[in-house]
Amino acid sequence: MKQNIRKIIGQGGNEFAGQDILSVDQFDREKLTYIFSLAAQMRELVERQGGTDLLKGRVLACLFYEPSTRTSSSFIAAMNRLGGTVIPITQGVQFSSVSKGETLPDTVRTLEQYADAIVLRHPKTGAAQIAADYATRPILNAGDGTGEHPTQALLDLFTIQEELGRVDGLHIAMAGDLKYGRTVHSLTRLLLEYDVSLSYVSPEILRLPLDLMNRVREQGVDVRETYNVADVIDSADVLYVTRVQKERFSDLSQYEEIKDFYEITPELMAQAKDEMIIMHPLPRVGEIHYGVDDDPRAAYFRQVRNGMFIRMALLAAVLGSA
Amino acid sequence: MKQNIRKIIGQGGNEFAGQDILSVDQFDREKLTYIFSLAAQMRELVERQGGTDLLKGRVLACLFYEPSTRTSSSFIAAMNRLGGTVIPITQGVQFSSVSKGETLPDTVRTLEQYADAIVLRHPKTGAAQIAADYATRPILNAGDGTGEHPTQALLDLFTIQEELGRVDGLHIAMAGDLKYGRTVHSLTRLLLEYDVSLSYVSPEILRLPLDLMNRVREQGVDVRETYNVADVIDSADVLYVTRVQKERFSDLSQYEEIKDFYEITPELMAQAKDEMIIMHPLPRVGEIHYGVDDDPRAAYFRQVRNGMFIRMALLAAVLGSA
Amino acid sequence: MKQNIRKIIGQGGNEFAGQDILSVDQFDREKLTYIFSLAAQMRELVERQGGTDLLKGRVLACLFYEPSTRTSSSFIAAMNRLGGTVIPITQGVQFSSVSKGETLPDTVRTLEQYADAIVLRHPKTGAAQIAADYATRPILNAGDGTGEHPTQALLDLFTIQEELGRVDGLHIAMAGDLKYGRTVHSLTRLLLEYDVSLSYVSPEILRLPLDLMNRVREQGVDVRETYNVADVIDSADVLYVTRVQKERFSDLSQYEEIKDFYEITPELMAQAKDEMIIMHPLPRVGEIHYGVDDDPRAAYFRQVRNGMFIRMALLAAVLGSA
Repeated sequence: MKQNIRKIIGQGGNEFAGQDILSVDQFDREKLTYIFSLAAQMRELVERQGGTDLLKGRVLACLFYEPSTRTSSSFIAAMNRLGGTVIPITQGVQFSSVSKGETLPDTVRTLEQYADAIVLRHPKTGAAQIAADYATRPILNAGDGTGEHPTQALLDLFTIQEELGRVDGLHIAMAGDLKYGRTVHSLTRLLLEYDVSLSYVSPEILRLPLDLMNRVREQGVDVRETYNVADVIDSADVLYVTRVQKERFSDLSQYEEIKDFYEITPELMAQAKDEMIIMHPLPRVGEIHYGVDDDPRAAYFRQVRNGMFIRMALLAAVLGSA
Repeated sequence: MKQNIRKIIGQGGNEFAGQDILSVDQFDREKLTYIFSLAAQMRELVERQGGTDLLKGRVLACLFYEPSTRTSSSFIAAMNRLGGTVIPITQGVQFSSVSKGETLPDTVRTLEQYADAIVLRHPKTGAAQIAADYATRPILNAGDGTGEHPTQALLDLFTIQEELGRVDGLHIAMAGDLKYGRTVHSLTRLLLEYDVSLSYVSPEILRLPLDLMNRVREQGVDVRETYNVADVIDSADVLYVTRVQKERFSDLSQYEEIKDFYEITPELMAQAKDEMIIMHPLPRVGEIHYGVDDDPRAAYFRQVRNGMFIRMALLAAVLGSA
Repeated sequence: MKQNIRKIIGQGGNEFAGQDILSVDQFDREKLTYIFSLAAQMRELVERQGGTDLLKGRVLACLFYEPSTRTSSSFIAAMNRLGGTVIPITQGVQFSSVSKGETLPDTVRTLEQYADAIVLRHPKTGAAQIAADYATRPILNAGDGTGEHPTQALLDLFTIQEELGRVDGLHIAMAGDLKYGRTVHSLTRLLLEYDVSLSYVSPEILRLPLDLMNRVREQGVDVRETYNVADVIDSADVLYVTRVQKERFSDLSQYEEIKDFYEITPELMAQAKDEMIIMHPLPRVGEIHYGVDDDPRAAYFRQVRNGMFIRMALLAAVLGSA
């Protein structure tokens, strides 16, 4: 199995070896295909034997300046299942030397003396790029402010591919907060590598930013915008749900008026295709009813699991030899 | 060794494979014998070679909604010594997404995408059962409020068995806070599977709850209650000590009057049998004098170590194949 | 490789097996040579293959009563690269049972039931000795208040040895806060085992404590004191920089007057020898300009890396069989 994986990693010369993973813009269709094929292998491996020794002796530092249990747990499990180990700096960075006036470049250059790669979560946009500028070891961006969170976008796209067998030709609808939703922006950018039609469903004040919408349109994508999930539920192959936060509305009556348009209920699901999936980056707070969870089309927990496979694939590609 | 352990785990068909460990009520005498025999093997294994590869490739999530260094450390060491790895969510759960309004069912269903089993510590009674209702992977209850803490009760009983070679026929005295002491309640329930005589030593306001006392009496157990450890010290085979907290008393003079009745001193130990043991769930705060620590009958640190062996046995039974 | 390391560890009978590492005073020149030779092997090992299985099945508890990401990360990486595992109690000890009135001796005697050795960081001077008095397993002092931090001193000295090929005959200058700087005191004590000349550069109020200066003088060491780094920069083989904290000065104008004397700039480095090194225990806050980082004489990040090798050497010596 280890030989197999090494062979797969090396296919066509692994271009990721020793590289940073900072942005979805690093991924063209060919690279996506490579990572997804590796991730699918990782699933098979985990399901057959739990893990492998591929990264035995390798150490990953998880440096989280803001806590994110979901993402850090996913990276820790991924590294462990590859046979490597983790330095978990996932809590209380704010109490420690790394925040006692020490700069991010110094912290990163310190940790890379111990670790072979660093996963970085930081509240400031652009932090991952700064870290990468100073580090000599690979930096994996696990979210930097309103900037990028590339592994989330990759796992989202991988989920579509795995669940529906393809991405080309699908009608993908994204609903909720499309203005601030980092995951929606990143997924959109990745989807432009494919031949899809897109629907954006949001309240007026939470519409997709104009520059991103323009980029979509320039590519000649079949795209529509609407205010109500009900408008797209019957034709969508993928419905990607995010939360509409009450706090975004200065006028709460306005929120009360529209909030039902974005709730996914069993009744709504009755109108959806048999072969479609509901996705969500999680955590959810009421925007998908618990009654939907047992629906086979509810893909959000499988989506979580795909996150581990994607992170295994990236770690293997970055740290495994080409 | 690995083959040996697999064989022992599989003896008589391992009924624990894939199961939750939620309550002491799951354990009848046969199952206790099985787990204790496995735990004894684990001790031998650790003492001979430190650990094994039995759970190589397996991942355990330790999800602690309240910190408990003792319990989480014990589970981490247990999993590591079995060759598995751990996602340690043992601090700061309150700062992270898992508490940003996310429900326990969602958190558990997320973590089981990464991990093969989840150890859960939660401040609310019944939380472990709720987690188990939603999870498809095994949940191990590491304490839920005033509810259960089954691994503690198992390690307590295992300690009696290991230290004195048997449980049947012993006089077991429990002293201190018998009203609120979760460990005393759980141990009592397990002891009802054996032929023992029981003494309960407590201030009037901290007596064993009536329903539990009735259950003991219904089983025809030889049982007595008293106010002073001195009354039982000469005949006890086991003295299980818990703390009498000053805070329980509205009238502090009342506390001052009786507190000496529950202090274990070298002088008191002079009246005890040569073959008996002092146990304590720890941490202690003065209820056992430091002068007792060197007494070979002081079993409380060996009791801690047995916790690791019991948790190794449970993890091996739950995660190792039948 | 594993055989090799075992052989090296056993050279001359490993005197460290099962021992505590509490103070630099435990190390004479022979022992330093032994540990440094082991650390050099560790570097080779890590650079060739990442890690080894030497401590497979062994568990290390990292018990940090105050956070220190740098030191805990270094020990975690060291133990992992030796094939062992770690119980990371590096955050929030203050919220947990270990601080709910439990004494250090009880906490240590609890953790050693799970772990084969304990790394202890504690805010109180002397805490490591107390822990060692009660524990039966090895205690490694990772800093106790203003007391000792022996692994830091060892890595400092190892860095000099590795970077310049020797310690004897060197002119070593230490600059900054020499009064409170624990690293300067410990390094000085180790350097007395060698034939060196020493310079101490500090503001008047932050001079090396008299008792330590007397000890240096009694050994007949060639020693000088001065106020300005510029006085020693041209002749130093090693310049060990620490921070002069503004807070030490009651009169801030005094601080402003002298602070430039302790800033390491590219201009200052132009006056230094070609073969010399700049060291710093990190974190730094401005006392070494970023412009110096690319200078090959800037050794402070390599110094960090040496910390991992020294800790690997100590763990291997303490836990590996003789």
